Amino acid sequence: MSLIVQKFGGSSVRDAQRVMNVARRVTKTYAKGNSVVVVVSAQGDTTDDLIEKAREINPKANKREMDVLLSSGEQISIALLAMAIEGLGYPAKSLTGWQAGFVTDSSHGNSRIRRVETERIENELDKGNIVIVAGFQGLNRYDDITTLGRGGSDTSAVAIAAACRADLCQIFTDVEGVYTADPRLVPEARKLAEISYDEMLELATLGAQVLHNRSVEMAKKYNVPLEVLSSLVEKPGTVIKEVAKMEKMLIKGVARDNHVTRISLIGLEDVPGIAFRIFSALAARKINIDIILQSVGRDNTKDISFTVSDSQREDAVAVVEELKQTLRAKNIACDGVTKLSVVGAGMESNPGVAAMMFEALSEAGVNIQMIATSEIKISVLIDREESDRALRAVHSAFVAG
Amino acid sequence: MSLIVQKFGGSSVRDAQRVMNVARRVTKTYAKGNSVVVVVSAQGDTTDDLIEKAREINPKANKREMDVLLSSGEQISIALLAMAIEGLGYPAKSLTGWQAGFVTDSSHGNSRIRRVETERIENELDKGNIVIVAGFQGLNRYDDITTLGRGGSDTSAVAIAAACRADLCQIFTDVEGVYTADPRLVPEARKLAEISYDEMLELATLGAQVLHNRSVEMAKKYNVPLEVLSSLVEKPGTVIKEVAKMEKMLIKGVARDNHVTRISLIGLEDVPGIAFRIFSALAARKINIDIILQSVGRDNTKDISFTVSDSQREDAVAVVEELKQTLRAKNIACDGVTKLSVVGAGMESNPGVAAMMFEALSEAGVNIQMIATSEIKISVLIDREESDRALRAVHSAFVAG
Repeated sequence: MSLIVQKFGGSSVRDAQRVMNVARRVTKTYAKGNSVVVVVSAQGDTTDDLIEKAREINPKANKREMDVLLSSGEQISIALLAMAIEGLGYPAKSLTGWQAGFVTDSSHGNSRIRRVETERIENELDKGNIVIVAGFQGLNRYDDITTLGRGGSDTSAVAIAAACRADLCQIFTDVEGVYTADPRLVPEARKLAEISYDEMLELATLGAQVLHNRSVEMAKKYNVPLEVLSSLVEKPGTVIKEVAKMEKMLIKGVARDNHVTRISLIGLEDVPGIAFRIFSALAARKINIDIILQSVGRDNTKDISFTVSDSQREDAVAVVEELKQTLRAKNIACDGVTKLSVVGAGMESNPGVAAMMFEALSEAGVNIQMIATSEIKISVLIDREESDRALRAVHSAFVAG
Repeated sequence: MSLIVQKFGGSSVRDAQRVMNVARRVTKTYAKGNSVVVVVSAQGDTTDDLIEKAREINPKANKREMDVLLSSGEQISIALLAMAIEGLGYPAKSLTGWQAGFVTDSSHGNSRIRRVETERIENELDKGNIVIVAGFQGLNRYDDITTLGRGGSDTSAVAIAAACRADLCQIFTDVEGVYTADPRLVPEARKLAEISYDEMLELATLGAQVLHNRSVEMAKKYNVPLEVLSSLVEKPGTVIKEVAKMEKMLIKGVARDNHVTRISLIGLEDVPGIAFRIFSALAARKINIDIILQSVGRDNTKDISFTVSDSQREDAVAVVEELKQTLRAKNIACDGVTKLSVVGAGMESNPGVAAMMFEALSEAGVNIQMIATSEIKISVLIDREESDRALRAVHSAFVAG
């Protein structure tokens, strides 16, 4: 008998029929003799509807009250799912975030989980109940309701799995697992049977929207085996764990991110301390920098380019414009680009990977603007208009080939 | 500076505009230098919508889970009202039932409040906050969410007023106060400035749907001054307190209840113990009996009649049918009737009241089927079809006259 944590997102419980589907799925696992904790999100559009209600009343609503408001969404889901499971003849008990022992910090709307006090969950499991927990929410030390922000429900599920030492944490989604590339763009993309935490983290960062990084980071930290699988089709998904089984293929996946802005300061004086001044000013405004490239310019000057996500474009440009005069930059350029990446452990010991990637892009006639590498990934910046073609070319070179 | 508890029902907060109205009303009281605790119900049809969601999934949903589900409705209201108040520039903090310290017993769906642990409410008041509390809900000793059942939010407000020793508990409703009769039926009905707890209890029991009995009983027990007033019109309402100011008028109001069923067992043997057997069997099924009448029948038999609310009609008839044979009743009759009552303290020392009532009914040609009296009320059962005419006749004899 194993302890399994199963997480279902908002679209999986959006109406009565979907809730019944989830109930059948959960009870099947329970009927095999497993203990089951289920984490659910708010139904379908509930969260958006609640946000709209708040906006009508106060567009600048206080975050504490937003958390009180939004956490009601999961409270509805847990009750309905418990009723559905009981309707199938199985014992169930719903727990809100605070009942389930989620203690968080006080950053309303974006709280981090400090710990899960598992006594109540374990008591209910000991009584033979299927335990249904509201994802995305907790309680801070002042007994105020908090929410976890983006990716919160996945993180709730992993946190319970870690705290209760579950054997497996299953994340049910709209897709059947983790693919070598987005199957909507690359028809020949393959589903992976296994992938390591680090590879998954790189893929998530690079724009594969399967799992939020926070949940994968936590799973890695506490060594919780994760499985990503479909809530609609009953098939094995992709298992994410410390050391994934060696597959023939070195490259685990190809990902792209179309929301990247490249900002370049051109013609900077070639004196020490320039990079420090630029990036400390950006850090002070909480702007996350991804790739940085410094190149030698003409006439004893240099150019510095870096990328940010499109959502921070305006803030980053403002910082750079302020610095332009002091740094005596000749020019500032700003472009929306695509980041295309290949991810796979062991890449560093295979120098051929980069060459293969560049060759595939060259054959497809795609120009590479910038290159960045880590131990398990190679990323290039390319023109957004060429991104579909580039994705297919690189995927076919590494995965389908 | 006073501490005032204000309660607003579901229709008072049914949309953004109504929520803003409530916020303006509340902040006006606060701006005069009062400490304010506001109790709110779920918005408009929210509770019905949630019940429908549950019914789709499991028509026999467990009551514990219904409480988890339904309590989300008030959680939405408190957050929205707090946002509205903050939008007007005043400090507010919302508290769910469990945050506000409501400890109840474990009768899910119909819990009784055991106590209110007021520490959190008082801390927030001390910080100068307008405190918004979710009505209708609490927590039992197992840390499970409970709801208070019918009249729950009024009772929540009175319980806070009692526990925090508030100076006044204002219940905002759709009507402007307590009237001498239902103003929709009797145009000349007058609003009362004051009424005693006992008189209010009789009126509530008799079908004047202004306040639920539970809340009036609690207000009487803890001597909390209540005021019933309109949420839409800014006018003084009716104050309910221990000893109401003597008004000229002896009779405080005329009330009617159209949901009364009279059940008669006809031709019972005239032996001891018959009444005991009937009413203990009814009590065992938790059927509430209102009026009981025993009369001498023909041929050494007797008849016993009693009234129940229409909602318990089927259950009561079933009990009586079971007993029919054992008791050798010749016949069982069951009719829907109207109970018409006049209420007023001091009635017992004025024997003329009953006579005046009977005279008014007689002049209006209304036949009286049964009569029951208490210290402060006289009730008669009449034909439902004559109830409008009877109500107006009695009201004009006592109040308008």
